Amino acid sequence: MSDESVKILFMPSGRRGSFPKGTPVLDAARSLGVDIDSVCGGRGLCGRCRVECMSGHFPKHGLTSDTENLSPFSVTEARFEERKGTLPERHRLSCHATLLNDVVIDVPPESQVHRQIIRKETEHRDIRLNTATRLHYVEVESASLEDIRGEAQLLLDALKRDWELENLRIEANVLPRLQKALIEGKQAVTVAVYNAQDVIAIWPGLFESPRGVAIDVGSTTVAAHLCDLGNGEVLGTASVMNPQIRFGEDLMSRVSYIMMHPEGAGEMTAVIRRALNDLFVELSEGVAGDLEDILEITLVANPIMHHIFLGIDPVNLGGAPFALTTTEALELRAKDLDINIHPGGRVYVLPCIAGHVGADSAGVILAEHPEQDAEMTLVIDVGTNAEIVLGNKDRMLVCSTPTGPAFEGAQISSGQRATFGAIERVRIDRETLEPRFKVIGSDLWSNEPGFEQAIGTIGVTGICGSGIIEAVAEMFLAGIVSTDGVVNGDLESQNSRIFASDRTWSYKLHSATAEGQSDISVTQNDIRQIQLAKAALYAGVKLLQDHMGTQQIDRIRLAGAFGSHISLSHAMVLGLIPDCPLENVSAAGNAAGMGARIALLDRDSRGHIEKIVRWAERIETAVEDKFQDYFVDAMAFPHKSDPFTHLFGEIPPPVVRTQQSAAGNTRRRRGRARS
Amino acid sequence: MSDESVKILFMPSGRRGSFPKGTPVLDAARSLGVDIDSVCGGRGLCGRCRVECMSGHFPKHGLTSDTENLSPFSVTEARFEERKGTLPERHRLSCHATLLNDVVIDVPPESQVHRQIIRKETEHRDIRLNTATRLHYVEVESASLEDIRGEAQLLLDALKRDWELENLRIEANVLPRLQKALIEGKQAVTVAVYNAQDVIAIWPGLFESPRGVAIDVGSTTVAAHLCDLGNGEVLGTASVMNPQIRFGEDLMSRVSYIMMHPEGAGEMTAVIRRALNDLFVELSEGVAGDLEDILEITLVANPIMHHIFLGIDPVNLGGAPFALTTTEALELRAKDLDINIHPGGRVYVLPCIAGHVGADSAGVILAEHPEQDAEMTLVIDVGTNAEIVLGNKDRMLVCSTPTGPAFEGAQISSGQRATFGAIERVRIDRETLEPRFKVIGSDLWSNEPGFEQAIGTIGVTGICGSGIIEAVAEMFLAGIVSTDGVVNGDLESQNSRIFASDRTWSYKLHSATAEGQSDISVTQNDIRQIQLAKAALYAGVKLLQDHMGTQQIDRIRLAGAFGSHISLSHAMVLGLIPDCPLENVSAAGNAAGMGARIALLDRDSRGHIEKIVRWAERIETAVEDKFQDYFVDAMAFPHKSDPFTHLFGEIPPPVVRTQQSAAGNTRRRRGRARS
Repeated sequence: MSDESVKILFMPSGRRGSFPKGTPVLDAARSLGVDIDSVCGGRGLCGRCRVECMSGHFPKHGLTSDTENLSPFSVTEARFEERKGTLPERHRLSCHATLLNDVVIDVPPESQVHRQIIRKETEHRDIRLNTATRLHYVEVESASLEDIRGEAQLLLDALKRDWELENLRIEANVLPRLQKALIEGKQAVTVAVYNAQDVIAIWPGLFESPRGVAIDVGSTTVAAHLCDLGNGEVLGTASVMNPQIRFGEDLMSRVSYIMMHPEGAGEMTAVIRRALNDLFVELSEGVAGDLEDILEITLVANPIMHHIFLGIDPVNLGGAPFALTTTEALELRAKDLDINIHPGGRVYVLPCIAGHVGADSAGVILAEHPEQDAEMTLVIDVGTNAEIVLGNKDRMLVCSTPTGPAFEGAQISSGQRATFGAIERVRIDRETLEPRFKVIGSDLWSNEPGFEQAIGTIGVTGICGSGIIEAVAEMFLAGIVSTDGVVNGDLESQNSRIFASDRTWSYKLHSATAEGQSDISVTQNDIRQIQLAKAALYAGVKLLQDHMGTQQIDRIRLAGAFGSHISLSHAMVLGLIPDCPLENVSAAGNAAGMGARIALLDRDSRGHIEKIVRWAERIETAVEDKFQDYFVDAMAFPHKSDPFTHLFGEIPPPVVRTQQSAAGNTRRRRGRARS
Repeated sequence: MSDESVKILFMPSGRRGSFPKGTPVLDAARSLGVDIDSVCGGRGLCGRCRVECMSGHFPKHGLTSDTENLSPFSVTEARFEERKGTLPERHRLSCHATLLNDVVIDVPPESQVHRQIIRKETEHRDIRLNTATRLHYVEVESASLEDIRGEAQLLLDALKRDWELENLRIEANVLPRLQKALIEGKQAVTVAVYNAQDVIAIWPGLFESPRGVAIDVGSTTVAAHLCDLGNGEVLGTASVMNPQIRFGEDLMSRVSYIMMHPEGAGEMTAVIRRALNDLFVELSEGVAGDLEDILEITLVANPIMHHIFLGIDPVNLGGAPFALTTTEALELRAKDLDINIHPGGRVYVLPCIAGHVGADSAGVILAEHPEQDAEMTLVIDVGTNAEIVLGNKDRMLVCSTPTGPAFEGAQISSGQRATFGAIERVRIDRETLEPRFKVIGSDLWSNEPGFEQAIGTIGVTGICGSGIIEAVAEMFLAGIVSTDGVVNGDLESQNSRIFASDRTWSYKLHSATAEGQSDISVTQNDIRQIQLAKAALYAGVKLLQDHMGTQQIDRIRLAGAFGSHISLSHAMVLGLIPDCPLENVSAAGNAAGMGARIALLDRDSRGHIEKIVRWAERIETAVEDKFQDYFVDAMAFPHKSDPFTHLFGEIPPPVVRTQQSAAGNTRRRRGRARS
């Protein structure tokens, strides 16, 4: 190393400085505050600190030059390439490349500590990678007769020396593994440190596959994303039906089950935890990994699933005052919840907001972040209740409104969940009143040739949430249903699909074609259920607008499976969602699950959502007199059939069509079924 | 309440002040900094705050007076007496007695927050009651539709309001119990708060029986004391043989077992934890309590037992450099160690000092506190190794010396553990060379009438540690053994008890009286074992004296069962302990276990012993050349037979004789058998 100074410029940060010849690039970066990743602490093992030499050159593989900018390729780097494959052209390990002449260095995204994880959805901010659990590789001094320090102390001293980590606590599970790891790793170990505070795991030598799982426990579906905590990548996704379904399809019937079976809550807790543990096994096997690679999970859920997961009896959530045991975000230990990941693993549960507005809504807010923009954003997440968020950077209002399960196809005469055989699209000819429809599992309309064969033996089994919305909207547009929601029996003479049953009128969408099948009709009562549901949703939105003091909504985001599969035009026809230019309405996908993923990858987002949730104002629909008024007003279908009919020359496609025609029963895994 | 002021003087603190008429005595005490206990927070439920009215009087049971000093007996106090029995004469609940006129109030010890727990042993400081786990009774607001706080938040708010506890964390196990406790307690609950930080337990209504257990895991015996964390009382004591004995009698044979059986360490961890869990059940049943009443345990153990308890493979402790995995004190969760107490329960493990000087030695130091005095104190704790502490308030030295198991009767030809039938006292007539002895289980000397009957069918089965020490010392005093430790075969002609066997000489103490019994003799090899053991002990002490730079020892304390049962005079004859006026030598009893009890009852003692352990200097006998020299020098018996013989006109009793003659096999429970 000489006294001569060399200039270095880091891209993309633009930071620059002068350093003595011979300074490692990594050291230069650190002293300039340029974030370069490293697990091995500069030992040329992990390759996380690789950078690209943008100007000048350096000798590689024995070549030399008079004007090189970086030191020649080192033995350590050559050894790294042997183990992990050749580095890309002009790439170096910044811990082993030293400065010889002025140079421009690019730090690629994958080498940045707080790198951005690209979210696939448009119009969204990326996730900053900043995990709560971090890996640190250290070489630990050997114990000796003269040294009174125990191995645990030697480890802590090494972590302080190499990583400036102080006041760490070594957890009970690590102590029995420490000695073995030191022996196997020849005094080199990797530890996982949680929140710069707790040593929760240890491995011999260099360990590079820390995992985390983001979980969304829906009433119907439990979905889990396995993520690499080192680079933020999603390594796998798995989902299962919520096994609690055997205690009741919807939330309230599960709460009833618990009321009648004192051990019910415990059983449900056990089955949901077992389901999660099975998912972890499936996800780990999918990447040929070990269950103990999973160090953290984050979880969102509606209040009842949230309580049951935590082992809290949810019966109080079944009635006023809908008292949650806890609304705060929780940092727990996986072991305490019988979650089989690493024994030192952690669980972060996002905060709940109110008795009906759970950690899933917090996840939606975290993913949709209306608080970061000036535009007034409405976020709707429909389940058995719809959670509604209205706000911008100045103010945020949240409420839950009792839509009931009609939007999910429940309490509808021919209703069913969105699985194979369910009608999901409906068109009714305005003149002939003849319908055509599509069912899940086929791309063909029912009046197209080959439809019968495509449906095969499954047949047309029922109508799902998006199907019933389109059916009712089409019946309204075709004049079969009045603005009051009454089926016009006078049309019986025009088309026999309008028929009387049980002293009311119904409309037959489909006649059974085989034995064992049933006709599929939309009854007067079905229409009433949709009216009740949409009135509840509309009244909730209206109430928030009232409190906000504005009718203006700049953007509408529809979260969850509901938002992904309904036809927005038809939803507007029914007055499900308030007026807003159609181009500003979009599906948010599984926003709750995305929120869990953000919380998993960026620990700062946890403090943020906890703050936002405290800041947001909760509006309790049940105690607002106006809610009832708005509810009654909103029962009618809007007088909008004419202005909207132009839309139906060519029906706009549903927002998300991906996988819609995928084969098999994977369909029910495509999104987040909610209740 | 009036503006008029009233004077109050609190005894024994002597604090005084003026307060408006009508001020509750408890409030006056608190504002003067007088510590008065309370669990119920002034609701007249727990009775912890009772005080005695020393001057003036107050009306009770309907009587009135013109000059009363305290308010009349309240309805709450009457209700308290109905539930819990009449208060003593002149006693009041300070939370419900208010000031009317000048008064002197005595706060009895049991009402003081940091009260002293009287230790039975003489010359010891008492324990200050200041537990890490504290109970707090609160009445929690009910949840309401208008209130967005969850029940957990309502609880935390109540704890802040009534107890000024902030930033508490509610643990995972408490959440599922919270709602039930609130319902059952009609919104009143008691919580246990650990270190003013973690809410670890909850009960409906007023809970008043918090328990803790102080544990001493010896190689031979595991002893546990159940304590009331509310008042410091010992509620029960239980002990069992360490079940690891089936893997080997002494520590090194257990380590060997683990070396040969890879699963051995895990097995041993499981059996010791199971043994502890059984002890907790036994202790709980003994007080008709619940296992979940136990909120904390503290534990001392030698390094190998310490590691095995924690699930750490101890094989590294079997050889140089005797590397401990951890020496630091540990605050762990019972659940993480499969300890079945309250699921939120905590485990405090005292710090280790060095590879051979474990948490048991830390316990001994905590109980004996040589660092608090100016006198130079020597504390010896004898097991398979002897741990030696030499120090005073200025400096403390600690070492371990390899005495081997001879002092416990092991590796002695007729040696056995100190149980029924073992010879424990020996006298040899200086003229006739005839012996007399006592065995455990009888108070009679062997030459007294009725001895045979008293011994009954058990017979004389062997010789225990204290017996072999007396036997060898008496043989030396009677001239049967030389200062070099050689049995004088010339005496064969004088008494046939001196006999040749295996080319060396032995001395027969007892001839078998029935079939199946064996003769009991002291062989030349037995004497060599005692010489080796006592030389190791003496060399260790000498080494510490060297390092300390003083030959002066003001006080000698002998810890453990060894110290309680040996005859000090005989120990001095053999040179087991260095010169020191006999009145300054005493047994410390189970000092290690006492240390665990202190750590259980006084949380400040934990920080104190952690500091002391870091401050103490460790002397490693194995690396000190001088140790070997001292060891060889100390093999001989001192030339002290003459100056000491005057003592043996009347032999001083062993230090502890309690339970010595107690019937049955409880004997092995009386103290702390160590190895």
